[in-house]
Amino acid sequence: MSALLVVGSIAFDSIEAPTGRADDALGGSATFFSCTASFFTRPRLVSVVGEDFPESFRRVFAARQIDTSGLVTHKGQTFRWKGRYHQDMNARDTLEVHLNVFATYDPVLPTAFRDSTHVFLANASPRVQTRVLDQVTRPALVLADTMDLWISTERDALLTLLPRLDGLLLNDSEARLLADEDNLVRAGEAVRRLGPKFVIVKKGEHGAMLFSHDGIFVVPAYPTADVIDPTGAGDSFAGGVLGYLASDDSPPPGRLRRAMAYGTVAASLTVEGFGLDRLLRATRAEIDERLEQYRNMLSF
Amino acid sequence: MSALLVVGSIAFDSIEAPTGRADDALGGSATFFSCTASFFTRPRLVSVVGEDFPESFRRVFAARQIDTSGLVTHKGQTFRWKGRYHQDMNARDTLEVHLNVFATYDPVLPTAFRDSTHVFLANASPRVQTRVLDQVTRPALVLADTMDLWISTERDALLTLLPRLDGLLLNDSEARLLADEDNLVRAGEAVRRLGPKFVIVKKGEHGAMLFSHDGIFVVPAYPTADVIDPTGAGDSFAGGVLGYLASDDSPPPGRLRRAMAYGTVAASLTVEGFGLDRLLRATRAEIDERLEQYRNMLSF
Repeated sequence: MSALLVVGSIAFDSIEAPTGRADDALGGSATFFSCTASFFTRPRLVSVVGEDFPESFRRVFAARQIDTSGLVTHKGQTFRWKGRYHQDMNARDTLEVHLNVFATYDPVLPTAFRDSTHVFLANASPRVQTRVLDQVTRPALVLADTMDLWISTERDALLTLLPRLDGLLLNDSEARLLADEDNLVRAGEAVRRLGPKFVIVKKGEHGAMLFSHDGIFVVPAYPTADVIDPTGAGDSFAGGVLGYLASDDSPPPGRLRRAMAYGTVAASLTVEGFGLDRLLRATRAEIDERLEQYRNMLSF
Repeated sequence: MSALLVVGSIAFDSIEAPTGRADDALGGSATFFSCTASFFTRPRLVSVVGEDFPESFRRVFAARQIDTSGLVTHKGQTFRWKGRYHQDMNARDTLEVHLNVFATYDPVLPTAFRDSTHVFLANASPRVQTRVLDQVTRPALVLADTMDLWISTERDALLTLLPRLDGLLLNDSEARLLADEDNLVRAGEAVRRLGPKFVIVKKGEHGAMLFSHDGIFVVPAYPTADVIDPTGAGDSFAGGVLGYLASDDSPPPGRLRRAMAYGTVAASLTVEGFGLDRLLRATRAEIDERLEQYRNMLSF
């Protein structure tokens, strides 16, 4: 019996974009991941919020059947992020970051979560990610996200973590930074030689690439005419990938590729609204329908 | 009986890149297009060179069975271009442009070329492209390339040409400029409403998108670890697309998609060497083999 665990952030996101604005919307990596994965399985959420976290936001998780027994409330304020998207929506400026209770958070897994089979270590210090992983008894598939900050400031801890991962998720500039290689194909392959069984390189509106023992798999983004708010697209993608993998026990060949297609489609829904607005209006049938459209778009 | 015509430039390209350099290499839109199309059909080339154009370069066309009866030699020097690629190879600076004989060139089709069925109007002033098209008796499929310069300075002539085209080829920033729309999906659709039956938006290393009455088709680039020189990739792509279409008489559904896949694979070979070095070492069997790898990379 598979069980999917996510450890990451919950935040209030304030967003300014050419398409409009949102104030104190429910966001954070664990939020986007778990809400997306909830279309496929019943995810276990481990995160922290402050005393200001409203009951209405807790009900979002409850309505999605997300197991929040690992969600703790600490004294203080919830993580807050404020950003502004540029006219072309592929670039943004971070205007404010207040880590608040997330700054000192050292995740502790409820005992019942230690038997999780599928684990997503959302973007965090690799030392924190390692301590989380140490608490999982026998994970079958571990996927971790990282970012340029950790590659630059905690490279040693990251390099120690990498061989313990099945998959590493990072964006194109981060892959180039970690591998010290400009060509993205070489960079992805070089990162894989650092330990993870597979590497997923995210390219934003240009999709993603998978590097595995099967070779390279290229995944364009699902082309949507309604990019309203790209926030959370990467974590939504991861939630689709791992949610699908945790729910599917078909034979391995092609399963990871299919998972990436689900991740792509889920991310395309997420960006079509502010925060979780659009994603939470979707249905599994709609996701499957878009997956078929996507398959047709790619076939020749 | 189909016959493919290309009207465009022949140039001496001098290139500086992190991967090395080339001086006075054979280049130009008509060169990359026709050499690529020659893997599929026997293209008809219409272009101009100066008195300095060497016999060795003429032999390149002859060896590829390209019909050069429309290649004229004018008094003066051949078009020269010099560029420098940045470290990441997706950006370049033009260091020198000497149009030379190309500046005053007004293409005249040999009478025998007027019955061409497939026509590629390589990047040129839309007024010149229109005069070329007027010389073709009854074209079955016309594809034109354009650029930001013409969108800005000869918009009216371009808008008059567009309804006469089957396909328009332009890059992502040019599509945004022509449509005055940031979202690429909307921009591609808006450009199609200006007249061409289909629009191909090139995204460089991120592939291309096709907008047609069948909807949207997304085409990631073939991921190559050996990007040596991106010069000519776009024209090589076009040569693969139109070369394949001119050589194939299978039923329409899916034919244009298959053509774009051939264009993608051809472009991936072109960028693996300076100028024509790598492309001309390829074989049709190698192209077909890479096409199958590419198909596998995209299937899930």
